[in-house]
Amino acid sequence: MLYSSKLIEDAVNEIICLPGIGKKSALRLVLFLLKAKPEQTAHLATALQRLRTQIRYCQRCHNVADTTLCNICTNPHRDSSLICVVEHIQDIIAIENTGQYNGLYHLLGGVISPVEGIGPEQIHVNSLIERVKTEKPQELIFALSATIEGDTTTFYITKKTKEYTLKLSSIARGVAVGGELEYTDEMTLGRSIQERIVYH
Amino acid sequence: MLYSSKLIEDAVNEIICLPGIGKKSALRLVLFLLKAKPEQTAHLATALQRLRTQIRYCQRCHNVADTTLCNICTNPHRDSSLICVVEHIQDIIAIENTGQYNGLYHLLGGVISPVEGIGPEQIHVNSLIERVKTEKPQELIFALSATIEGDTTTFYITKKTKEYTLKLSSIARGVAVGGELEYTDEMTLGRSIQERIVYH
Repeated sequence: MLYSSKLIEDAVNEIICLPGIGKKSALRLVLFLLKAKPEQTAHLATALQRLRTQIRYCQRCHNVADTTLCNICTNPHRDSSLICVVEHIQDIIAIENTGQYNGLYHLLGGVISPVEGIGPEQIHVNSLIERVKTEKPQELIFALSATIEGDTTTFYITKKTKEYTLKLSSIARGVAVGGELEYTDEMTLGRSIQERIVYH
Repeated sequence: MLYSSKLIEDAVNEIICLPGIGKKSALRLVLFLLKAKPEQTAHLATALQRLRTQIRYCQRCHNVADTTLCNICTNPHRDSSLICVVEHIQDIIAIENTGQYNGLYHLLGGVISPVEGIGPEQIHVNSLIERVKTEKPQELIFALSATIEGDTTTFYITKKTKEYTLKLSSIARGVAVGGELEYTDEMTLGRSIQERIVYH
């Protein structure tokens, strides 16, 4: 594409490196910023720069943090006897937005995957076992993906924490609330029958 | 949404000000940047900042420019006897990318629209008439939108340039190349019949 301005070309080329944004969308964003107030671009650029340079990771649970510990770990109102084990930052955000969970988290940063060469050392498993030892939580809730890798990770942690008195659980898998059985995939529907909830 | 980091929240809030990007997409971009190399964010932020602070507009045709005149106006190989009149920067980019036009441009920055309170003074019409007077082009090619506002603008410029020996034309409207008649809207198909091209 010819842009008749090196500045536009540079900005477009940087934006298309982002996932899900093509050349046309990038150009649309650039032209939008050109029409908007200069402060908007300044604020955007500063927010991105600050994000990347100032972000830290919680020393306890590896969640993103603005200081040494994240604001979930430092919150005295959270129940420290519960640790929810997740893969990614977006999982914590998703669970937090339900408003249904008041415990702490532990972010693994991935799951054990021999195929991709990810072993227990590549993810934050050891620090979780260390936390089980020192913090003595009552329960670990696994909220990992329902794949072989997720199950392997759960199994590994289960084995490694055998010696501690600890309840282990996993989030329920089943048909989505409001979801129709007809459109639910076989795996999910199968699990929802196997793991059915008994009323009495 | 709860993000557990003010830095992420700030970045997401700045990104969702951009058109066509919602909260989920913004968060995805932020988490992508966090995983990518720090330089990528730095380059992106710098490109956006430079774009907004250093961009200039061509004193002759009002196109975006990196210096006083844009690189189309300063190109000695372009045919200065042709001026294509367009509304937006993206129109110039679209025409340039066809590789079929070698003349100059004049960017109006909009069209006359009494309903929206846009008169000839709000757009770059006077500088176009000034260019007709001083540069004495042979032809003005209107590439404005096919709306009442576009037609009004064409009519206004036609009237104002009456006294000069000047050919006036408009880009052809018709069925797209490869487009099927069945799926072409009535307005376009109607114009393509009215403005049919006679072979002999």
